[in-house]
Amino acid sequence: MDGITALGLIAGALTTLSFAPQVARAWRTRSTADLSPAMLIIFLAGILLWLVYGIIREDLAIIAANGATAILISLIISVKAKHG
Amino acid sequence: MDGITALGLIAGALTTLSFAPQVARAWRTRSTADLSPAMLIIFLAGILLWLVYGIIREDLAIIAANGATAILISLIISVKAKHG
Repeated sequence: MDGITALGLIAGALTTLSFAPQVARAWRTRSTADLSPAMLIIFLAGILLWLVYGIIREDLAIIAANGATAILISLIISVKAKHG
Repeated sequence: MDGITALGLIAGALTTLSFAPQVARAWRTRSTADLSPAMLIIFLAGILLWLVYGIIREDLAIIAANGATAILISLIISVKAKHG
């Protein structure tokens, strides 16, 4: 792995990590009332497009960061679908 | 601009857009008490690293998306620094 890819992976780890407390909170409280469904869907759509973009560009950092974030958002949306 | 770059720009517009209501709310209410300063700093650090990554890779989509998001987070942090 080259240094630039390593830089991208660190960047992705930081942005994904900063999103994790929100996911943990939603999972723990089962409460997502303050999260707008429209915002979650737009965010998930954006992340999935980034994933496609990373795959086409064969960019490991973009694939890893957005793959991980897609899983986290899907968890939040599933909590919201079940518990509102 | 090729189609892949256009895809990346759309992806970036969506993920940045989904972040905008939070910024508008912070700006309007001047209240960011529920936003963790550590999370904001980690997020900003991640976004700035993505920006550097995009510049090195000469990737317009990554530069545009993370440049815009960096400005939005800086606005939130400035509200937090002034109003807590």
